[in-house]
Amino acid sequence: MTTRIAITGAGGRMGRTLVEAVAATEGLELTAAFEQPDSSLQGTDAGELAGLGANGVIVGSDVSAALNDFDVLIDFTVPLATLANVRACQSAGRAMVIGTTGFTAEQQADIDAAAQSISICKATNFSTGVNLCFKLLEMAAAVIGNDTDIEIYEAHHRHKIDAPSGTALTMGQVVADTLGRDLDKVAVYGREGQTGARGSDTIGFATVRGGDIVGDHTVTFAADGERVEITHKASSRMSFARGAVRAAGWLVMQNPGLYDMRDVLGFNDE
Amino acid sequence: MTTRIAITGAGGRMGRTLVEAVAATEGLELTAAFEQPDSSLQGTDAGELAGLGANGVIVGSDVSAALNDFDVLIDFTVPLATLANVRACQSAGRAMVIGTTGFTAEQQADIDAAAQSISICKATNFSTGVNLCFKLLEMAAAVIGNDTDIEIYEAHHRHKIDAPSGTALTMGQVVADTLGRDLDKVAVYGREGQTGARGSDTIGFATVRGGDIVGDHTVTFAADGERVEITHKASSRMSFARGAVRAAGWLVMQNPGLYDMRDVLGFNDE
Amino acid sequence: MTTRIAITGAGGRMGRTLVEAVAATEGLELTAAFEQPDSSLQGTDAGELAGLGANGVIVGSDVSAALNDFDVLIDFTVPLATLANVRACQSAGRAMVIGTTGFTAEQQADIDAAAQSISICKATNFSTGVNLCFKLLEMAAAVIGNDTDIEIYEAHHRHKIDAPSGTALTMGQVVADTLGRDLDKVAVYGREGQTGARGSDTIGFATVRGGDIVGDHTVTFAADGERVEITHKASSRMSFARGAVRAAGWLVMQNPGLYDMRDVLGFNDE
Amino acid sequence: MTTRIAITGAGGRMGRTLVEAVAATEGLELTAAFEQPDSSLQGTDAGELAGLGANGVIVGSDVSAALNDFDVLIDFTVPLATLANVRACQSAGRAMVIGTTGFTAEQQADIDAAAQSISICKATNFSTGVNLCFKLLEMAAAVIGNDTDIEIYEAHHRHKIDAPSGTALTMGQVVADTLGRDLDKVAVYGREGQTGARGSDTIGFATVRGGDIVGDHTVTFAADGERVEITHKASSRMSFARGAVRAAGWLVMQNPGLYDMRDVLGFNDE
Repeated sequence: MTTRIAITGAGGRMGRTLVEAVAATEGLELTAAFEQPDSSLQGTDAGELAGLGANGVIVGSDVSAALNDFDVLIDFTVPLATLANVRACQSAGRAMVIGTTGFTAEQQADIDAAAQSISICKATNFSTGVNLCFKLLEMAAAVIGNDTDIEIYEAHHRHKIDAPSGTALTMGQVVADTLGRDLDKVAVYGREGQTGARGSDTIGFATVRGGDIVGDHTVTFAADGERVEITHKASSRMSFARGAVRAAGWLVMQNPGLYDMRDVLGFNDE
Repeated sequence: MTTRIAITGAGGRMGRTLVEAVAATEGLELTAAFEQPDSSLQGTDAGELAGLGANGVIVGSDVSAALNDFDVLIDFTVPLATLANVRACQSAGRAMVIGTTGFTAEQQADIDAAAQSISICKATNFSTGVNLCFKLLEMAAAVIGNDTDIEIYEAHHRHKIDAPSGTALTMGQVVADTLGRDLDKVAVYGREGQTGARGSDTIGFATVRGGDIVGDHTVTFAADGERVEITHKASSRMSFARGAVRAAGWLVMQNPGLYDMRDVLGFNDE
Repeated sequence: MTTRIAITGAGGRMGRTLVEAVAATEGLELTAAFEQPDSSLQGTDAGELAGLGANGVIVGSDVSAALNDFDVLIDFTVPLATLANVRACQSAGRAMVIGTTGFTAEQQADIDAAAQSISICKATNFSTGVNLCFKLLEMAAAVIGNDTDIEIYEAHHRHKIDAPSGTALTMGQVVADTLGRDLDKVAVYGREGQTGARGSDTIGFATVRGGDIVGDHTVTFAADGERVEITHKASSRMSFARGAVRAAGWLVMQNPGLYDMRDVLGFNDE
Repeated sequence: MTTRIAITGAGGRMGRTLVEAVAATEGLELTAAFEQPDSSLQGTDAGELAGLGANGVIVGSDVSAALNDFDVLIDFTVPLATLANVRACQSAGRAMVIGTTGFTAEQQADIDAAAQSISICKATNFSTGVNLCFKLLEMAAAVIGNDTDIEIYEAHHRHKIDAPSGTALTMGQVVADTLGRDLDKVAVYGREGQTGARGSDTIGFATVRGGDIVGDHTVTFAADGERVEITHKASSRMSFARGAVRAAGWLVMQNPGLYDMRDVLGFNDE
């Protein structure tokens, strides 16, 4: 049986990528697409917008009027729009995948409440690869972490305004937690001048900024004679779109509740 | 308490590296070193040979005469020499780490028999990093193997006469086993000309040969929008030496028996 | 003074990327955008299509009717459409950047003829990085090519139907030409089984296929003790778009003629 | 005709590597090898020390007594020993390759004076690859330096006490000089916290420390849609040894004078 998918913000970059990801996934079908009422893209074909050729799904504006057209709504927009969509989906028992970020505590509480009657998967990073890497890092740190020097490299586009990336810091946290170290005390964020020899407990961060690099991360465990490296390279929003679409396919088989990507990937089954 | 280590072939490349690895490991001390009776290196200082400066351990030739000088013998030599050393160690209850390869079935049976009264760790690849990578590959394949294209890259020095490397093939086997695929059917060892689009079940191997590359391996799990890579880079015999030395330190705490690196790393505890 | 740019196929993937590249380049301004007459995107805003927000340039269909609106037309479409655009531009003295491929000899002759009265830049690969790499490879091969083992690695998406990539083969050709070797004789496209030691004159190709990799190329010069690598990583059509836009800005300062990217980058000035 | 090579410090790590490099080079033959008078390695076979098997060259202590046994002396020792060897070589018209560092101005003046009657090649970095990379960086910076974000990554072993490496800084200097930038003003040595977007003129340095990494350097030129990278990976002293041996073979064909690796590689011929 095919799961029917609706996508909000279908004319935006993430929306188009979601349209593409749905088209590439067996068992899922795009059946509705939405944009803001004042967009010049209203009435265009969602497939054509995504560069896939026309697929007959015309971009509309009213989720509430189309609740019978889909099983799962994928929503990467803004908090206010998402909250309205949560209320609409709740009224008709539709599942939701929520990639929107920046909710207030009150808004989050509304989502939690809705998840008592519908299935919602909400995450800050939908990439399956990144979530897998966190698990791999746990295992690697446990086996060789105390015998190796651990360094975290990340590269992002020139517009990124913070460093290291949130993902790099989470990677460092996973490693530090596994080894019983306090990341605040062992992190080294730059090296310049007479640094002295490397402290064996430190976790180094090396940061590159340039071009339009979507996001590269490599954690190196370096010993005398060998290195083990765990690397994630994001090349496009498609990494997030694929994870969101995987979540959508998984979600229709679940009971009402609030889930995240760890649930989707089965890491919480253990 | 310090564990006393003896090393055979101490003037060879692997022997010198073992001397260096012991010197770098807390809780272990080099107390005996051996070379063949006709070597011009007899009587030299093992530390000086290893480029560490003199350490007072003079290279000798007779393991049997020095059985009271060590707790564990690390032996990376040739089968006949190793067998003689097994007999000597058995007579005095000394543990052994055996990195020698190429034993006949009969010789292996002798080692198995000796392992009923002494502790022996024997492996074909002592690298902790490589053994860890096999475990990481199992986990990665289980989580994203069926959603990604899997490719195995390896690079070795110009003198290597076979391809892909044994380690690369084992990596492919680990992935194929995890995914229930038959490696013989899905392996692709080269691509030239009009190959057509990639088969989604295939596991590709890409092989580089050049210079003195000790051994690089990368397994890539590639999806739309992201890649996860697990990489091992060997830079010297030290990777094997460190694993052998880790095994030696672990071995003195074990009951008699025959062990391998999976035991040392705790993968068989589960 | 600002150069006014028009883009054909502005609703397609390459077209949108060109719109973005123009917006990011000082001294250039998008002043016209075109799509096929039957596209559902007619009348939409070119900036909004490109995900940049509205820029007031409405997608039209008739280049001939808009010849006063631009200085350079960038055309990545299909031969018949491009030929019609060449005639239109020639009538008004407008310059053209042509990324369309697949012209017949006769069509190419028409372009050559037009280039006697207008400036045309036409190339099969507009990436400045790739064109630079060809030059770097010439220099590296000349200095260390005969002392090193040369290997060419490339990775592309799963849909690519030929191997190695055309760019990898051109890289091999550049190196072989510099060293006076016959690429047909020295190329090795795969290694499997008992290959024997590497022949010192060979040039190896290693090919990876997976996911949506846009195009990675690395040429390694490997010697005992060191490797020099020259790498190009394409992450999006933007690499071609930026080159085309650089060509457009350069083209308005040239006399009529037919140019390619080597001219734009100044490699033919020597 | 074969060039006869002598090596000082033949029992040390660099000396052994030089012995190996000579053995691997056509047209050169090791004919003398020296160690300090009080070394326990006096009288051993230089080939056996290098792990190559006996080659009949016995380690001695007195360069002056062996001046008729070689054409070029390769000397990577300490200033006082090197100065004595310079005087010996000058007395017999022997050429020298000097890799020793740390000379005083007065000692350097003595070497300069000797170079009026014998050929001396003296460099701080004998790697051909590193010297080539400096040239490649000049070219890359000239063509795309102002259109890209430039970042320099380097990784070294845990014992290195300064950062970034001298080679990384020289790479930055080469790029900055080519682009007319002041490295002191544009260098960024670490990124932490709210850094803001990347300044387009900056040159970033990212530093990794761990294990026994001999020395990796990558300079990335990142633009929207593509990256060009120039990478050097040192794997052993052999990179320096090979350059020194290349210099020795080249030196016997030169007139008396003081040369460096740029002369050997022909970069100063232009």
